[in-house]
Amino acid sequence: MLMNAERLLAGMKRAGLDAVVATMPENVTYTSGFWAMSQWIRRGPQAYVLTPAANLEDAVAITSTGLVDLAADPEVWVKDVRRFGKFIVDTTPGVTLSGQDKRIQEILDQHDDGDAVGCLVRAIKDRGLQSATIGVDEIGILPEYWDKLAELLPNAKLVRASSVFRYARAIKTHEEIRRLRKSAQIADMSITAALDIAREGKTEMDLARAFHCKTVEEGGLPVLGCIGVGDRGAMTNVQPNETRIKRGAVIRFDVGGRYRHYRADIARNGIIGEPDQKTARYHNAICVGMYKAIDMIKPGVKVADVFDAAVEAVRREGISHYQRSHIGHGIGLDGYDAPNIAPSNAESFEEGMVICVETPYYEMGYAGLQVEDTMVVTRDGVDTFMLTDAKLRVI
Amino acid sequence: MLMNAERLLAGMKRAGLDAVVATMPENVTYTSGFWAMSQWIRRGPQAYVLTPAANLEDAVAITSTGLVDLAADPEVWVKDVRRFGKFIVDTTPGVTLSGQDKRIQEILDQHDDGDAVGCLVRAIKDRGLQSATIGVDEIGILPEYWDKLAELLPNAKLVRASSVFRYARAIKTHEEIRRLRKSAQIADMSITAALDIAREGKTEMDLARAFHCKTVEEGGLPVLGCIGVGDRGAMTNVQPNETRIKRGAVIRFDVGGRYRHYRADIARNGIIGEPDQKTARYHNAICVGMYKAIDMIKPGVKVADVFDAAVEAVRREGISHYQRSHIGHGIGLDGYDAPNIAPSNAESFEEGMVICVETPYYEMGYAGLQVEDTMVVTRDGVDTFMLTDAKLRVI
Repeated sequence: MLMNAERLLAGMKRAGLDAVVATMPENVTYTSGFWAMSQWIRRGPQAYVLTPAANLEDAVAITSTGLVDLAADPEVWVKDVRRFGKFIVDTTPGVTLSGQDKRIQEILDQHDDGDAVGCLVRAIKDRGLQSATIGVDEIGILPEYWDKLAELLPNAKLVRASSVFRYARAIKTHEEIRRLRKSAQIADMSITAALDIAREGKTEMDLARAFHCKTVEEGGLPVLGCIGVGDRGAMTNVQPNETRIKRGAVIRFDVGGRYRHYRADIARNGIIGEPDQKTARYHNAICVGMYKAIDMIKPGVKVADVFDAAVEAVRREGISHYQRSHIGHGIGLDGYDAPNIAPSNAESFEEGMVICVETPYYEMGYAGLQVEDTMVVTRDGVDTFMLTDAKLRVI
Repeated sequence: MLMNAERLLAGMKRAGLDAVVATMPENVTYTSGFWAMSQWIRRGPQAYVLTPAANLEDAVAITSTGLVDLAADPEVWVKDVRRFGKFIVDTTPGVTLSGQDKRIQEILDQHDDGDAVGCLVRAIKDRGLQSATIGVDEIGILPEYWDKLAELLPNAKLVRASSVFRYARAIKTHEEIRRLRKSAQIADMSITAALDIAREGKTEMDLARAFHCKTVEEGGLPVLGCIGVGDRGAMTNVQPNETRIKRGAVIRFDVGGRYRHYRADIARNGIIGEPDQKTARYHNAICVGMYKAIDMIKPGVKVADVFDAAVEAVRREGISHYQRSHIGHGIGLDGYDAPNIAPSNAESFEEGMVICVETPYYEMGYAGLQVEDTMVVTRDGVDTFMLTDAKLRVI
């Protein structure tokens, strides 16, 4: 199971909720294992998971009929799956279906509830929650469906609850950590694959192709591919183009795909030939800053204290004017899970958080330098997911 | 420019709107050229484009400070870009910035409006629209921001307007057609690349890797990769796994990535060795059905009539029980643009629509068969984007 059930229940209790309804793709997958493809690759398609606090076994997943095969996947742990809408699937006459096909047929045999909200309302009523306080993830549900939900459940209290899911997702389960480790390592190997082909005259796009192909070969899918050479690397979200690699120009990678739906987000830098003095000093400074943060992190340590220490270390080591809005963030199904490692954040680190720690530096007219590692917070420190260290890779 | 300005204005007029606000990633890119990365790869990050009906030159794009480099891209045609939130970018002292860096600095020099909705409200007031009827794309804006917008603009009338953008996007501009053609052709070449490595013993994942790598090599990014062998192909959204290719089992591809943000969605089938009689007859039937539809399509022809003719042709040619909910759809920045080629749709085809025409057949216990071509509707018919015909590819 992906979901941290204990934490979700704690979040529901804290918010006074009798049930929650997941509506955005990350939360639907999180609370059921159901990867509702069309809502992942488009905006608008609706899929939901109703999770009652009283009994997690009573959860209900709601899918359009066109996605029934994905809802029948053996990885989906929610047993009660309802469907809405017309979609035709035939069956060979007389054939005995087995495994996933049998499960597909079971779901197809369910009543067509017409539309997503009709389906959800019936599930809520079936669970006796029509007068309950229900937390609905407000980000994925169409506004017209929220209105319809309120209209069809006049005695229920509907509360916006995307923050409850975010709270739950912050502490990862064993299976999530496994996937996130693999996802980060695919990204790390993909940077190495890209730097393996780097030489003068190659373009940013050449590196991007090598990067993404390696990700695909390792079983991932591309998502984030900011790769920039020289002063273009100072653009935070630089999108690779036909700019050629020159000797002495830093190549910045801020990259990561998905592996079994879980995101990666790491950063490294390479250079053809030895760096000049400024680059050597600045790159060392951001490395020291990142490792300073990583050394401090353990359960109970304040996020804001780690932020301060990292920024201070970068300043001391060579970038005296260094400033940041944050030096990292959680990662999971979403690329930015809690916590945000920012000075304004009153949270502390907790065991089981998976975090990206980063100390980027963007200077227009010069370059972008960025190191970012991913790790899980353990009982007494962190366990890194990285295969490489953050040193400037000299080619 | 990607946007069909004439059509958007017509949609605004029809809906009685003085302005529209794009909020979902597809509509933000469509109305400005601004690819607001974080809202494309996550749910929640806010970026908007305000387009006043009175003067398109008065459009305003609104971005978080962290995405300013993308808002400064030369492809962004909206001149007035506002920003919100803290994000640090340095500049080498004394350097003269040029090109995109100069534009980044111009946007950074704008006032920080605090948050997305504060930024939007100021833009609306600056354009004198504080008492106007404003159509807001309701899908991308956070519900709490919709409420805040209504509160801060008590004299404005806010109307849900995602349908106005969908209406505009249905008729493609020259640049959109160019990108969609390339996107479809990348997918077509990628299927060929995957079938080039197909032989007994290879797995679905082997084909998927070959498919996605070719997409990346051609400058695209993977999105949709349903590839299934034999009876697994009957699962509509089959996700490739380690299932091995066997002689005589159909391999179904329903696939397509993005090229410069524009989607592809095409389908083809391959087989190792000659097909059995059922497969040969059924596959021929779906081809005849698809080509029947394609032959009929031209401006003024009713979508529902084409649906009926295609289904009828498939039945006549060999799948007498054939049924479908739709036989295609528009495609653009979104994978499902208007029109939906369904029996309940009262629309007619129009010149400039880019459409996918498909006649899939899913039979549990047997296989999935699917052909899907992409094309633009021309003055007197269609211009196909496909490089290959839809025949069953015998290997």
